[in-house]
Amino acid sequence: MPEEPNEIFDAVTELKTNADGEPIASFLKMRLVELSEGYAKVMIKVMPEYQNFNGLTFGGIIMAVADQSFAYASNSLSYPSAASQFNIHFLTGASVGDELTAECQVLKSGRRVGISDITVTNQKGKIIAKATGTTIPITKLTY
Amino acid sequence: MPEEPNEIFDAVTELKTNADGEPIASFLKMRLVELSEGYAKVMIKVMPEYQNFNGLTFGGIIMAVADQSFAYASNSLSYPSAASQFNIHFLTGASVGDELTAECQVLKSGRRVGISDITVTNQKGKIIAKATGTTIPITKLTY
Amino acid sequence: MPEEPNEIFDAVTELKTNADGEPIASFLKMRLVELSEGYAKVMIKVMPEYQNFNGLTFGGIIMAVADQSFAYASNSLSYPSAASQFNIHFLTGASVGDELTAECQVLKSGRRVGISDITVTNQKGKIIAKATGTTIPITKLTY
Amino acid sequence: MPEEPNEIFDAVTELKTNADGEPIASFLKMRLVELSEGYAKVMIKVMPEYQNFNGLTFGGIIMAVADQSFAYASNSLSYPSAASQFNIHFLTGASVGDELTAECQVLKSGRRVGISDITVTNQKGKIIAKATGTTIPITKLTY
Repeated sequence: MPEEPNEIFDAVTELKTNADGEPIASFLKMRLVELSEGYAKVMIKVMPEYQNFNGLTFGGIIMAVADQSFAYASNSLSYPSAASQFNIHFLTGASVGDELTAECQVLKSGRRVGISDITVTNQKGKIIAKATGTTIPITKLTY
Repeated sequence: MPEEPNEIFDAVTELKTNADGEPIASFLKMRLVELSEGYAKVMIKVMPEYQNFNGLTFGGIIMAVADQSFAYASNSLSYPSAASQFNIHFLTGASVGDELTAECQVLKSGRRVGISDITVTNQKGKIIAKATGTTIPITKLTY
Repeated sequence: MPEEPNEIFDAVTELKTNADGEPIASFLKMRLVELSEGYAKVMIKVMPEYQNFNGLTFGGIIMAVADQSFAYASNSLSYPSAASQFNIHFLTGASVGDELTAECQVLKSGRRVGISDITVTNQKGKIIAKATGTTIPITKLTY
Repeated sequence: MPEEPNEIFDAVTELKTNADGEPIASFLKMRLVELSEGYAKVMIKVMPEYQNFNGLTFGGIIMAVADQSFAYASNSLSYPSAASQFNIHFLTGASVGDELTAECQVLKSGRRVGISDITVTNQKGKIIAKATGTTIPITKLTY
C-alpha cells in the first residue's frame, strides 16, 4: 500500500516486488511469471502430494493456481481487493508432473466491483479449467 | 473400487479406510472428521504459510477445504465421481490459527449428475464461505 | 428512494407498495407473496408459452422467478442494490401448470456486497433449483 | 430426435427447422440468428415490459437470452441435452430499446457433460454479461 500518498502508487511494481516472499506461493510452489495491468500468469507443477483419494489431482489445487492469477490480476488494477465469489468448470484432469498455467484477464474493474476471467491450461495447451470471479475493492469506502 | 463385484461395495467404509493415506489431505493437514452417505465434514487449521500478499488467508485454502468435503460427500453416494463445477462465495475472512470446518450435504445424486451444498464455518460458528458444486459419476457409462 | 432524508426509509413497505405495478412481474405473471427484511417469496405458474424446443420448461423462466425473489430480498436490506452475479443448479424439470415458489434468504448484506441463497420448489415441495447470488449496493458510494 | 437410426441425425438442421415454432422464443421475442455446430447467436430487443421495480432491465431477461443461446449451442452437438448449472456475471445494465446479442460457444461436449461459454453484448458491442454453463446429455444412458 502507498506509504507516501503524494506519490502515484504502482500496484504492478508493488505486487511483483512482494511476490517472492508470499507465504502461500512458496508453500504451493506457485510462480508469478507475468503481471501487467489487469493481467496475470501464474504457473504450478503438479506434485505427488497434490493427489487425492481417487488418484486424481485435487480440484483444490487447480482452483488454487486459478485463484492466484485472479488475485494478482485484480489487485493490479484495484489494490487492495478481495475475492467475493469464484466459479470454476473442470474440463480435463491433470497428472503428476504436469506444468499448469493459469492466466487471468480482468473484464471489469469498477469502483464497487471487479469481474475476471481465468483459464488454466497444461504444458500441451489443453484447457484444464475455466473460471470467473468477483472482487470487491476493500479500502475504497474508507478513503 | 470393488474388487469382487458380487459383494456390495460400501463407499463410506472404503473412503474412511483410505482417508489417512491421502496425499493432499496430509499435505494441507485437512482431517476428515465425519462421513456418512451424502454428508462429509472436513477440518483444517489456518497455518502461517496459507497467507497471501495482502496478509489475508488465501482463497484457495478456503476452496480446498470446501472441495475436500464436497469430494468425500459426493463419492460416498456415487463412487467414483469427479467434480465438474464449483462455485463459492466468500463471506468473511479467516486468520492464522482459525479452525475451519467444511460441511457438505449432497442435494442430488443421480445417474448422470450430482449436486452438493457446502458451508465453511470458523471455530466461532461464523460462516466463512458458502459453495455449491456439480459432480459427474465417472464410470457409470462403462459398466 | 427516500425523498426526505430525515425520515427512516422503509424498503420493505416501499417495495411492497410498488410491486403491483412492476412491468416484468406483470409480463411473466410473477407474484410477490411474502417480503420481510432479508427474505422474499415469489410465485409463478408455468404457462404453455414457457416451453422450449425440447418440450421442457425454459431454464430462463426458472432463473427469472429465482432472480425476482433475489431482487426483492436483497433490496429489502440494501436499497437500491443491483445483481452482479448469479449461479443456479437445476435439479428437476418443471411442467406446464406447475406452481413454482422461489424463496430467497439474504446471507450477508454488507456495505459493499450482499450474498443471497435461493431455493425454487414446485407445488409438491420438490426442489426444482438452488441458486446463490451477489448484489452490490448501487448508491452507497455517492452519499 | 432421429426417427430412423440408420440416418445421420443433423441436430443443427433439426433445431433450425423447429426454432420458429418455439413457444418461449415467441413469447420473449428472442430470435435465433445463427447456429452451427457448437455455436449459437440469439438476439432480443429490450421491451418496456422487461423493466423491474428499480427501473432497470430485469436480470432474468439477460439470463433468458444467454440461456437461449446456451441451449441451442449445446444441443447442436449433443441432442437432447439439459442444463444442469448456469453462472452469470452482470457487467453493465441494459435499457429499453437496446438490441442484445447472446453468443454461446461450447468449450467441451463430452459423453457425460458439456461446458459452454456465453457473452451478451449490446448494439454498441459493449459487454452486458458473461456466463458459463453445464449441460448433461439426457438420453445417452438409455441407448
